Amino acid sequence: MPVTDRLVEFITARRAPPPDVTRIVDLCLLDWSSVAIAGRNEPVARLVRERAAQEGGEAEAEVCGTTQRLPVRAAALVNGVTSHALDYDDTHFASLGHPSVTVIPAVTALADRTGASMDEAKQAVLTGAEVAIRLGVWLGRDHYRTGFHVTATAGAFGVTAGAARLLQLNAVQTRMALGLTASLAGGVKAQFGTMAKPMHAGLAAAAGVDAALWAEAGIVAAEDGLESTQGFAATHHATRDDRAFDGFGREYLLPEVSHKFHACCHGTHAMLEALRRLRDAHELTRKTVDSIEITVHPQYLDICNIPDPRTGLEAKFSYRQLAAMMLSGVPTDRLESYSDDMLADPDLSTCRAQVRVRTDGSMRETCARVEVWTHGGDHLVADHDLAAPMGNDTRLARLLAKSAALIGEARSRELWSDIVASPETPDRSPGAVLLTL
Amino acid sequence: MPVTDRLVEFITARRAPPPDVTRIVDLCLLDWSSVAIAGRNEPVARLVRERAAQEGGEAEAEVCGTTQRLPVRAAALVNGVTSHALDYDDTHFASLGHPSVTVIPAVTALADRTGASMDEAKQAVLTGAEVAIRLGVWLGRDHYRTGFHVTATAGAFGVTAGAARLLQLNAVQTRMALGLTASLAGGVKAQFGTMAKPMHAGLAAAAGVDAALWAEAGIVAAEDGLESTQGFAATHHATRDDRAFDGFGREYLLPEVSHKFHACCHGTHAMLEALRRLRDAHELTRKTVDSIEITVHPQYLDICNIPDPRTGLEAKFSYRQLAAMMLSGVPTDRLESYSDDMLADPDLSTCRAQVRVRTDGSMRETCARVEVWTHGGDHLVADHDLAAPMGNDTRLARLLAKSAALIGEARSRELWSDIVASPETPDRSPGAVLLTL
Repeated sequence: MPVTDRLVEFITARRAPPPDVTRIVDLCLLDWSSVAIAGRNEPVARLVRERAAQEGGEAEAEVCGTTQRLPVRAAALVNGVTSHALDYDDTHFASLGHPSVTVIPAVTALADRTGASMDEAKQAVLTGAEVAIRLGVWLGRDHYRTGFHVTATAGAFGVTAGAARLLQLNAVQTRMALGLTASLAGGVKAQFGTMAKPMHAGLAAAAGVDAALWAEAGIVAAEDGLESTQGFAATHHATRDDRAFDGFGREYLLPEVSHKFHACCHGTHAMLEALRRLRDAHELTRKTVDSIEITVHPQYLDICNIPDPRTGLEAKFSYRQLAAMMLSGVPTDRLESYSDDMLADPDLSTCRAQVRVRTDGSMRETCARVEVWTHGGDHLVADHDLAAPMGNDTRLARLLAKSAALIGEARSRELWSDIVASPETPDRSPGAVLLTL
Repeated sequence: MPVTDRLVEFITARRAPPPDVTRIVDLCLLDWSSVAIAGRNEPVARLVRERAAQEGGEAEAEVCGTTQRLPVRAAALVNGVTSHALDYDDTHFASLGHPSVTVIPAVTALADRTGASMDEAKQAVLTGAEVAIRLGVWLGRDHYRTGFHVTATAGAFGVTAGAARLLQLNAVQTRMALGLTASLAGGVKAQFGTMAKPMHAGLAAAAGVDAALWAEAGIVAAEDGLESTQGFAATHHATRDDRAFDGFGREYLLPEVSHKFHACCHGTHAMLEALRRLRDAHELTRKTVDSIEITVHPQYLDICNIPDPRTGLEAKFSYRQLAAMMLSGVPTDRLESYSDDMLADPDLSTCRAQVRVRTDGSMRETCARVEVWTHGGDHLVADHDLAAPMGNDTRLARLLAKSAALIGEARSRELWSDIVASPETPDRSPGAVLLTL
């Protein structure tokens, strides 16, 4: 069955997912809102917001970081960029993408415009995220390795799917919207390390909004923009792995999403989780520890193994510094922990010197092993796999702690309460619930 | 020398081109304005314009088909779509693209916003068109054959170049704007035959405006979005033909541009020009002609050789019907000539039956040969090559005739007068000159 046919069927069937899947959407909304609000003053967020505000237009949707409402496309763009500005949002490893930062800003902006409820927005977010994930897997490693940023490319199709669901487009309109997206989706990895990387999230959000609203208005595009001759797959190095659609429509992959609980490179998180577990179980401190050995997949050596970082930014890419921070109780979930001043702390430097990093090519990319030798003679070992399932209660507790670290405990509690109570708050639009400071 | 370095140097050097090259820009503006105004009520133009008008925003730039001014990005988008809606705009064959419909709407909208003069807009149009053409050749046949629409892809970089020139961006900003364009340029040929094809022109115009304005504001993107690892060329099947830049900055390729003088498939134009010459030189009519033989490159058989068309649209893709129209004096430059009623004209049908089409694989794709046998016993032969240079005076006369057929003689004369008088009309913005009905 052609992929476009599968997607149209899935989007227009409007099935209700099981409650545990809906709960994942709630958790993604909590996390997305927290990282967006915390990222509102990042330079890229400010620059994109200022230009959108200068353009102006109809007051359709809430915009993070300002009380000025803007047209839905502009709001999706700004909120997408803003929520990816800190690179602290969720990741779906198998699809190599960040589903929330494209789909949520677009769907919530559309809900603000149409008056859709938070509950309808959640259904549309799930639809969009599921399509972004499935298509990310389908486009696959060839697409990613050649240089396409899956968050932006598969993400744009996911946004279109979520927008089509929210707008209740019919099958023909949904097909046209997906077809049009083949000419709107883009984003190359040459931008990594620049402001253009977080911009990709907003651009994908805007692209899907455009595609869905144009299709709703009657624009005619390719019947099969994905798989036809000279369509998206043919031009964008798609792997076309049809196993991506195993169970599609019955099972959801969004619950596999991995949230970031540390405000640093995702490649260091498995190590931090393993060390955190040892630290808490054995009440380790830097005074009781003699040495630490970290084992990771060799691909990370070029990414996040700066042995002696000189700045707060470099610390985010340093196994040794981050291990020292974890052992010393420096909160790795707080943005302000990564100050340049930290590098002058002699205790952290001493501790860092006790950490070794080695590699194991047979290890999964989502795994890390941490071994600790104590002054008392213990040899402690912990493994962590970021891809391992996490119960919703554990995830909620950790996300609330992260949210509190980012936007304050009072605001994070209120935010969560508003998200779960959504059906009873028809007077506040989803954007107002999620983006009020 | 890296392509981005060449482009930055060319854009920021702001050299003044020779007068005959500037005259080509004047002619392109005349033609672009005429086809845009004539296309304003096409469904795709109307739909895109209505959504932009609904979004609203700052009254920065003129929009074809409405007196409502819109933000510069929206104006570039709508005017780009509108000017490509009839598919009656210019073509640069060697680069496989339509340079005017992307660059002119973007540059003139920016000029409306900044208060730049028509003369400054012309310089920026030339800069942008030259970059679009050079990059179209550089991206080349691989890029096009895989399925990318060069008008949209190379066009977006061209727009960025023109916008950077108009905004007088410095070298760093220009580099950032070009880098960002690597994530904004797109458009696949799966859309051909749908409304999304003309939308590509507007999307490229909007992309270049976005890139230039964001770079002006301080957005940081890839240093070399075109050629770096995982940049545009690596991901978009670029041929990377460096001969594309032979003479770049000293010589201009825009004068090679081919204008359409018949409101039908470009593949039929060489035939129409050859037959037109014979008709006028020998005062041929359908009563004096016994038979006609047309010879073209075989690639056109699948495109524009519908032997017995049934609709006005099919007539645009029919060598035989178009030859009958030319011989009978039906104006092939007027949109209204292609009515369904025409197919019921018995005289045209009789004449059509006298036309044969044959192919010659050794013929250039831009060429056609027409042979006519008259009742008087003459055998007349004419060849035409669309790539052959056309003098500016001849081109002007033909463009004025086309413009008059599209928007009326009075308006076309006034338009041309305003275009050439540009330096003396600082009180009227370029958009107002070009897009007033």
